[in-house]
Amino acid sequence: MAKSFIVADVGGTHIRVARFPVQSQKPTVVKRINTVGPDSPHDRLLNLIAKVIPNNEEIAAITVAAPGPLDPFAGMVYEAPNIPSWVNLPLRKLIEDQFHVPVAIGNDANLAALGEWRFGAGIGHRSLIYITVSTGIGGGVIIENQLLLGERGLAAELGHITIIPDGPLCGCGQRGHLEAVAAGPAIASWMEQEISQGIPSSLSDRKPITAKDVAEAANQGDELAKAAIARSATYVGTAVADFLHIFNPTLVIIGGGVSQSGEDFLNPLRTAMNEHVMSKHYLDNLTLTISALGDDVGLMGALALAETLNHSKT
Amino acid sequence: MAKSFIVADVGGTHIRVARFPVQSQKPTVVKRINTVGPDSPHDRLLNLIAKVIPNNEEIAAITVAAPGPLDPFAGMVYEAPNIPSWVNLPLRKLIEDQFHVPVAIGNDANLAALGEWRFGAGIGHRSLIYITVSTGIGGGVIIENQLLLGERGLAAELGHITIIPDGPLCGCGQRGHLEAVAAGPAIASWMEQEISQGIPSSLSDRKPITAKDVAEAANQGDELAKAAIARSATYVGTAVADFLHIFNPTLVIIGGGVSQSGEDFLNPLRTAMNEHVMSKHYLDNLTLTISALGDDVGLMGALALAETLNHSKT
Repeated sequence: MAKSFIVADVGGTHIRVARFPVQSQKPTVVKRINTVGPDSPHDRLLNLIAKVIPNNEEIAAITVAAPGPLDPFAGMVYEAPNIPSWVNLPLRKLIEDQFHVPVAIGNDANLAALGEWRFGAGIGHRSLIYITVSTGIGGGVIIENQLLLGERGLAAELGHITIIPDGPLCGCGQRGHLEAVAAGPAIASWMEQEISQGIPSSLSDRKPITAKDVAEAANQGDELAKAAIARSATYVGTAVADFLHIFNPTLVIIGGGVSQSGEDFLNPLRTAMNEHVMSKHYLDNLTLTISALGDDVGLMGALALAETLNHSKT
Repeated sequence: MAKSFIVADVGGTHIRVARFPVQSQKPTVVKRINTVGPDSPHDRLLNLIAKVIPNNEEIAAITVAAPGPLDPFAGMVYEAPNIPSWVNLPLRKLIEDQFHVPVAIGNDANLAALGEWRFGAGIGHRSLIYITVSTGIGGGVIIENQLLLGERGLAAELGHITIIPDGPLCGCGQRGHLEAVAAGPAIASWMEQEISQGIPSSLSDRKPITAKDVAEAANQGDELAKAAIARSATYVGTAVADFLHIFNPTLVIIGGGVSQSGEDFLNPLRTAMNEHVMSKHYLDNLTLTISALGDDVGLMGALALAETLNHSKT
């Protein structure tokens, strides 16, 4: 009998669920729903999963990419920055109890790294780092073909390293982390601050400004918007040099909304990385690139996780 | 016939070579020589190895812990900060050509982590980070019982992450790295600077001041010396919080000369680490401790490497 994987990607605004035939990378169904609604986000997730499960097919596994910090070994979401009601949520058990099949959950940025390694920009690389820059900054690391998880599954939080001691407040409550100085909100607030000081920009009359506004203005040649994006990219590039010293990978993948600025983001990132690396040997055979899977990276990461689950169970 | 491992630890001031019977952790011979002398450091190493090789015993492997950056896969030392003549030195080949047995070399701080994991403070831990604070700051990381090497063996340079952007010059040529603000020379120069501004200390008449002087003065109650050590430990503790976010280990081991200050160093380190961690879950089951192997950590790390070499060859 044909078997399928059910994979889900839970974000702050949307939940997506897809069904993939085992050994296929083309989904037969993809459904999407808002994360917030009359019922709880996990009830909405469970209902959407039920909708994509076929009547006459066996389900090999269900996997979920979810915001962290979460413990993939315990199947527990400790807290989800954009889903306030998810605190110490036993997500794996909720799904297992309803569907009675093997279930695994993973941090969305970790699984994005796994997805890129298995199906995307990371194919053929043994060691890579993935950094997603959007509302927050998340990370995922592959070392010798293994996902770095750490002892409680909390590793690879690459957005939460100190860049400016006692710098701006970070979403995590600490100060001066990479996320606090380089993620979307930092780009937007720097832009607003410069405009308030009289620096000219096509966004002068816009308030509030979003990171997406800045990216679009930069695309259309706005110099201040380009500077805002370059400033973020320079911070990320300096941090990437540190990560090269730590992991010595052959590939760095940049994902998330901000990466859609393409070379406007990659160029200053590359310059800062090259300037801050302690030995040119770290740049030997190193590739810097944009995510190949784009918006599907969460689903494809969950699919890669489902494969490993299927292998370990059979 | 009895077999032996020959292991060496090459430092900036001394070379040590020991012979261990296979499956023993007690050396039968240890010899030591100055690194600098009339002949080259590698000739001195080769001669010392020859002296500890027994006439009637087979040698299973020769391993060397050496200063980095070095490529353990190519057996090549790129450069050694304290041994200026070692630039692109094919150290493994030099030893193989003379002794015709399996040879491996490793970065000294990486092998220290391996040694602590196999024989010292890290026994029973799957994931740990080792940080050595002395003239420089080196690192080693064990992830799921494997040494983190990176694609060219250049990973785990934990002393070379940016702590203060555009901060003091680092030994590697970059600025504001952990090594530049927290290693022995930074401790000594901060002490000299405070004294030159009239802050009282038992070391007021000493010039130049070394990190060892500061440690001894702190031991005898000198408040300024204690502050100098606490300042370094605070930087290291902030960086350790970042490393917890990156690796989520169960053990942090502090080695090197500065760690001999014991709780004078560990207390402020622990305080900074606890303050800067983004979630208390990173502290669950986490142990912070001093190196158990002390001055022998390089030899014991080389011994652990020799064991893996022996297993992979048989």
